[in-house]
Amino acid sequence: MDIVEIINKKKNGKILTANEIQFFVDGVCSGKIKDYQTTSLLMAICLNGMTDEETYCLTMSMARSGKMLNLDDVGVCVDKHSTGGVSDTTTLVVVPVLASLGIKTAKMSGRSLGFTGGTADKMEVFKGYNTEISTDKFVSLIKENNASIISQSADFALADKIIYKLRSDSGTVENLSLIASSIMSKKIACGAKIIVLDCKYGSGAFMKTKKDCKKLAKLMVEIGKRAGIKVCAVISSMQQPLTEFVGNNFEVYSSIKVLSGEKNNLRELSCYLASAILVLSERCKTILEAEELVKNAIDSGSAKQKLRQIVKSQGGDDSIIDSPETLLNCKNKFEVQTDKAGYISKIDTAEIGRISHDLQKIDGVVKRQDDVGIILNVKLGDKVNLSDKLATMYYNNLDDLPELAKRLKNCFVVGKKPKKNKLIECVIGV
Amino acid sequence: MDIVEIINKKKNGKILTANEIQFFVDGVCSGKIKDYQTTSLLMAICLNGMTDEETYCLTMSMARSGKMLNLDDVGVCVDKHSTGGVSDTTTLVVVPVLASLGIKTAKMSGRSLGFTGGTADKMEVFKGYNTEISTDKFVSLIKENNASIISQSADFALADKIIYKLRSDSGTVENLSLIASSIMSKKIACGAKIIVLDCKYGSGAFMKTKKDCKKLAKLMVEIGKRAGIKVCAVISSMQQPLTEFVGNNFEVYSSIKVLSGEKNNLRELSCYLASAILVLSERCKTILEAEELVKNAIDSGSAKQKLRQIVKSQGGDDSIIDSPETLLNCKNKFEVQTDKAGYISKIDTAEIGRISHDLQKIDGVVKRQDDVGIILNVKLGDKVNLSDKLATMYYNNLDDLPELAKRLKNCFVVGKKPKKNKLIECVIGV
Repeated sequence: MDIVEIINKKKNGKILTANEIQFFVDGVCSGKIKDYQTTSLLMAICLNGMTDEETYCLTMSMARSGKMLNLDDVGVCVDKHSTGGVSDTTTLVVVPVLASLGIKTAKMSGRSLGFTGGTADKMEVFKGYNTEISTDKFVSLIKENNASIISQSADFALADKIIYKLRSDSGTVENLSLIASSIMSKKIACGAKIIVLDCKYGSGAFMKTKKDCKKLAKLMVEIGKRAGIKVCAVISSMQQPLTEFVGNNFEVYSSIKVLSGEKNNLRELSCYLASAILVLSERCKTILEAEELVKNAIDSGSAKQKLRQIVKSQGGDDSIIDSPETLLNCKNKFEVQTDKAGYISKIDTAEIGRISHDLQKIDGVVKRQDDVGIILNVKLGDKVNLSDKLATMYYNNLDDLPELAKRLKNCFVVGKKPKKNKLIECVIGV
Repeated sequence: MDIVEIINKKKNGKILTANEIQFFVDGVCSGKIKDYQTTSLLMAICLNGMTDEETYCLTMSMARSGKMLNLDDVGVCVDKHSTGGVSDTTTLVVVPVLASLGIKTAKMSGRSLGFTGGTADKMEVFKGYNTEISTDKFVSLIKENNASIISQSADFALADKIIYKLRSDSGTVENLSLIASSIMSKKIACGAKIIVLDCKYGSGAFMKTKKDCKKLAKLMVEIGKRAGIKVCAVISSMQQPLTEFVGNNFEVYSSIKVLSGEKNNLRELSCYLASAILVLSERCKTILEAEELVKNAIDSGSAKQKLRQIVKSQGGDDSIIDSPETLLNCKNKFEVQTDKAGYISKIDTAEIGRISHDLQKIDGVVKRQDDVGIILNVKLGDKVNLSDKLATMYYNNLDDLPELAKRLKNCFVVGKKPKKNKLIECVIGV
């Protein structure tokens, strides 16, 4: 087999065989296929597409290209994955809830990337929490506590790691088959047998439209089915940050408040995701029935207790669970106001995510600072009067403040009519 | 400007600006743009195309990316370029003819590549001939003799050199804009003001169909026009080797025979190409009038005398011009016969070119041998009886002979009806 022939085949709109895709993935890992050949094929895939069968083959070849975690010894494990958003802290709620209900949850999380936050970063807000424990320790903690949250190891889905990096530098990010196979290859390699996908659409998601988001969700559910894994996908809105809190400390604060009973969008979505897992794992018959269980796990305090156990088991300081307001310790704040009265009709959510990252910059370079961030004072549909607060920026570094304030203000569009935003659109695969 | 944005723009079917194309070419040369970004853009160009304006901008940016030869001091110079074929020795006829008629001809030639031969290699059949003289010497020889034939220097069109290499390894060869800009950037950098393009189509050409060949020709003529250069393109058939002789010595023999008065396809095409130049340079009003001049230059012996001068001026031994049969000195030959009676209906010309290269292999590696090659005993449309000779292979190395003989035999398709092949299709741009 020859990679140039394979590239030409895809260039000419032909369907690649499982063997050809395996040859490509093997070559990417061994280095026999050069980066410039990989990106050429990736662009041909972007423009000529892949069938579901090809996408499945690519997913499986990438899943097998690195270490594969076998969790059979632990029993059926569940996993939850978000396609990425702003102020998206559902993992910190969903995992303790499920674990407190006896569902074994094996969660490998990512780091902050682009405009999105990273759960691994947020877990490290609990001082001393170790996200880099060995997979053996990971497995034993799932056995003990029903849950562990660690940082995604680079040992899994090696080919995806190489391809992912090349995609962002070669303009080949936006393609459903490439996105779906990247996500699912890692999930499959990590050994969970039941997965709930939180597929987000809107101004703060990678999928800008509901339509594309549903397509991606269906494709991932289909891949899971073929791979013998139970997968469902919840389609949810990222037209605005999930909560008013953006930034590591703020988001951890927000998740502790929800586990303490606060009712908001984070609670609503987390409950729905956890409920989908309970149905998928046949613990409950309907989402409605499952939601009762989930709400009880929160309201009884058992989910919060489980979070405490997870944090302590991996060396984290659990004191902030009792006093979350200590997380809101950033001294300097700057308020952004509206110069127009009306209704909040649009929020550039990705830009808010980027500003939150840029708040951590010192001399132009992001140096992780958990205490900075943004608190939104309005949400979609809210009525605002002239000079009302839109958002408050918390910062340590003054340098870029005027520029960031200007950008933050531009994130909000004030229109003439109230406009509502539906959080949960539907669920696919349950 | 950002290369990923430019790639995404082309991926989304947008038209690139002259500045964006210049940024790309500059980045390719400086190394700031990585190979894997280059090939990603090249694939997007292959699949989404380029406008004539974009193709022109790419050509000019690449032309300016290396050394540019200024021939103003010499006066108006002409150039001739073939898109590549088998047994294509027109340069060795056209250049002396034009030079003998007082037309200044600046010819930079390529080496043998893929299935095609290379004029620079053929000139070195004249023992001692130096194809690597300095451009200063090149210019002074054109002043003195009206002509010089040298090897194309890598100093010209640097970006094209890098991109050309990547294209063949990344499945991005077949695209009219990329092919046209590659050819024309080098031509423009080499300083000629009048160019005749020999655009070949068929089984021994890069363009397999007449239609694609004409498209490419029109595009190149258009680029020339925009660049202020007079260009015309002759569309000719490469459905069979131009003459019965394939291989360096054989082809030089063939060209000397034509300059000595032999009438065949090589003479016909060479005369047409030279005539097109005479019309383009306004020396003659019509092709018919020009052909009279050209034929006279050959039949009077003045073109052959000019070849002698060109060869001697660059240190070559001109004795073979008087005794060309000494070139046919390969001792071992193997005849391939037909096992079917009928008419020659198809010849796999590219494969004949490849076999001719493979005859030079020693232990699997091509080690240039000028004396080996193939003489065809039939041409398209010829009637053959059972066991008639199809072609004769001349070889030094026995190792691969059975395999090569089998391949050579398979190059000929014997059909039921006679089929004629028209050599010259038309001329574009005169």
